[in-house]
Amino acid sequence: MLPVANLDDKFGELTELWSPRIVAEVSGMEVKIARIDGQFIWHAHPETDELFYVHKGAMTMLYRDHAVALGRGDIHVVPAGTEHCPEADGPCEIVMIERAGTLNTGDAGGPMTKPAEPI
Amino acid sequence: MLPVANLDDKFGELTELWSPRIVAEVSGMEVKIARIDGQFIWHAHPETDELFYVHKGAMTMLYRDHAVALGRGDIHVVPAGTEHCPEADGPCEIVMIERAGTLNTGDAGGPMTKPAEPI
Repeated sequence: MLPVANLDDKFGELTELWSPRIVAEVSGMEVKIARIDGQFIWHAHPETDELFYVHKGAMTMLYRDHAVALGRGDIHVVPAGTEHCPEADGPCEIVMIERAGTLNTGDAGGPMTKPAEPI
Repeated sequence: MLPVANLDDKFGELTELWSPRIVAEVSGMEVKIARIDGQFIWHAHPETDELFYVHKGAMTMLYRDHAVALGRGDIHVVPAGTEHCPEADGPCEIVMIERAGTLNTGDAGGPMTKPAEPI
């Protein structure tokens, strides 16, 4: 990985939806970027909290008993082991911070599972 | 800490220079914001990598044998144990990610040491 990664440039290189890519590593955590649109799947990450930062657009974090609306610049942390489902009513760019090696679909698996590669 | 923190709002509340404040925690790491201007002090953090993200303005990460120029949107990671000195030729807003409890002056200590509080 190069010593400097520009977040806007990296989003410019990313076209695929729901396919997180790694832009930085910091002490066992990975910083990932993703484009999302529509609803993902319900899942949890037993081993890691998962921070979401909205770079562009807006999204909702669905929980089983409530929902959290997130707009541009908002930071929200999903606690480890908590079932959640990200949803966006249009194109949205997000940054995520979580333990290295975390899979996007967590404990749910299935066809939307994509191991994250660097970008 | 509230479930949602807006990064721009948090920077709006922060006035003091070189005084990092915590905006989120994620699996033992803290996300901090800081306003910087001028040169900080040389130090290292033996226990943690330290990620820098330039939210506004520009800065330079000085190392003993080279320097890394960072502009808006740039991400750069200082490896654990590496001597470094952040510098900005004007007002600059940065986001940092590092292990919880990390002191801004690392192993150097001195009068610029400020334990980070939430904002």
